[in-house]
Amino acid sequence: MDTLKKNWFTEVCEMWPGGTFSFEVKEVLHREKSKYQDILVLDTTSFGRVLVLDGIIQCTQKDEFSYQEMIAFLPLCCHKNPEKVLIVGGGDGGVAREVAKHPLVKEIVQVEIDDRVIEVSKKYLPFMAVGFESPKLKLHVGDGFEFMKNHSQEFDVIITDSSDPVGPAVSLFQENYFALMKSALKPNGIVCSQAGTFWYSMELVSNTLKICKNQFPKAAYATTSVPTYPSGQIGFVIGSLDSEVIFDNPTLSFSRQDELSMNLRYYSTDIHKAAFALPTFVKNELNL
Amino acid sequence: MDTLKKNWFTEVCEMWPGGTFSFEVKEVLHREKSKYQDILVLDTTSFGRVLVLDGIIQCTQKDEFSYQEMIAFLPLCCHKNPEKVLIVGGGDGGVAREVAKHPLVKEIVQVEIDDRVIEVSKKYLPFMAVGFESPKLKLHVGDGFEFMKNHSQEFDVIITDSSDPVGPAVSLFQENYFALMKSALKPNGIVCSQAGTFWYSMELVSNTLKICKNQFPKAAYATTSVPTYPSGQIGFVIGSLDSEVIFDNPTLSFSRQDELSMNLRYYSTDIHKAAFALPTFVKNELNL
Repeated sequence: MDTLKKNWFTEVCEMWPGGTFSFEVKEVLHREKSKYQDILVLDTTSFGRVLVLDGIIQCTQKDEFSYQEMIAFLPLCCHKNPEKVLIVGGGDGGVAREVAKHPLVKEIVQVEIDDRVIEVSKKYLPFMAVGFESPKLKLHVGDGFEFMKNHSQEFDVIITDSSDPVGPAVSLFQENYFALMKSALKPNGIVCSQAGTFWYSMELVSNTLKICKNQFPKAAYATTSVPTYPSGQIGFVIGSLDSEVIFDNPTLSFSRQDELSMNLRYYSTDIHKAAFALPTFVKNELNL
Repeated sequence: MDTLKKNWFTEVCEMWPGGTFSFEVKEVLHREKSKYQDILVLDTTSFGRVLVLDGIIQCTQKDEFSYQEMIAFLPLCCHKNPEKVLIVGGGDGGVAREVAKHPLVKEIVQVEIDDRVIEVSKKYLPFMAVGFESPKLKLHVGDGFEFMKNHSQEFDVIITDSSDPVGPAVSLFQENYFALMKSALKPNGIVCSQAGTFWYSMELVSNTLKICKNQFPKAAYATTSVPTYPSGQIGFVIGSLDSEVIFDNPTLSFSRQDELSMNLRYYSTDIHKAAFALPTFVKNELNL
């Protein structure tokens, strides 16, 4: 089960012992060690191009739209007027691509710590890096943590598109990060963070939701289907300063025509509502 | 990537080329070649006991409840009075275990073609085979196809819990099988069949739904999350003779207390409603 053996790549991570996903590789397009992480771009036989950071699959061309659309539109469509949005992480450009589609978004600020991920994505993953071309976007290379310390009450929505909490992203799952996001939000602001899978990482889901609930009057976990992530399921923790918000009843609904014109391949108003319905064992574990 | 190499089992199937799931094996509990298929039972480090037929994962102790509860309760809770239920396949006993829980079900008939799957499950997979102990159940070893030819207008609900359409289960995904189920149903009867994943088997999903629509006035596809199936997503085609049925509005709702008393770990009324919300690309492919 060695990685890159016989032209197959196998994901191995301490977070998910005893089970693993592998795919067949056509070509290794790029490999480097940046200041922060190991960056690998593969071309595969069944999943198109794949970005791997520190040995963990971040996104594949076949299914990335599910993750990107959901982490963007779930919080945006829960906010009454999401004019100014901060993206922390998201160095491949996919989240910016989706946020820029929202009709009420006027300004996007993105802070990504690793400029090499940005450059590699621009070269090898143009279907996501197209997000960097939006005239709405200002892209900063730096630490999202430090950035927010100097930007108080400035954003309507903050989306944290991070890797898992092993390595550089650990701090983005901690209480002081959520407190900092809260201080960077305007009144009624909303945050949305990648928060792991309930199948294999229930403790991560539970802890992240608990932290979010500590900081925000309203908080919830929503789920989506991404086949190339461990368990095929990943979720998001969403917190809102608006105590009147009803997460599974979006303030902005999209028609079939809207879905088409925005090239939405996963998100719809019905999918939004369904994303907050959680299996019984998850409700039990999260005390919902 | 050989199966059972270095104590890891790897699933390899022509239906899902270029990507595969593997898990670490503690012990091979049983292996035999029955008249119909290769039967393998493994004990694993992270997924408990696992049933593998012809090299394909059928169920793991960790996540089988999602599949079993959904294929049982989705059709049962769409029917006004599901007194008599036929299960075709389901030789591990898990679907019978769930169907027997439903308060309105009085009689369950199950037809499984391979008695060796039943016996192996009774010995090694008691958490599912417990379903065979229900006093509501009559278990027949035989061909579901042949069985239904002699049972006209007899059942309220028919659940087909089959393996994928390679090998012995091919016929269960064809038009004449759906026509036969229709003839075995009472008025307003409902069928529910395993129907593949939209991520990797869209043609199977599309064809099965089309066949179901040809035979039934109302038909839909519903989805659930099963991490050890390819893509982590699998779905069901549901067809009803009741043209008034609204699939995502169950006729019987369960309270939190009901979920607890029936030991439901996945299914709930909210999950039922959410299961019919499909991603935009799926709606587009299925012309929904």
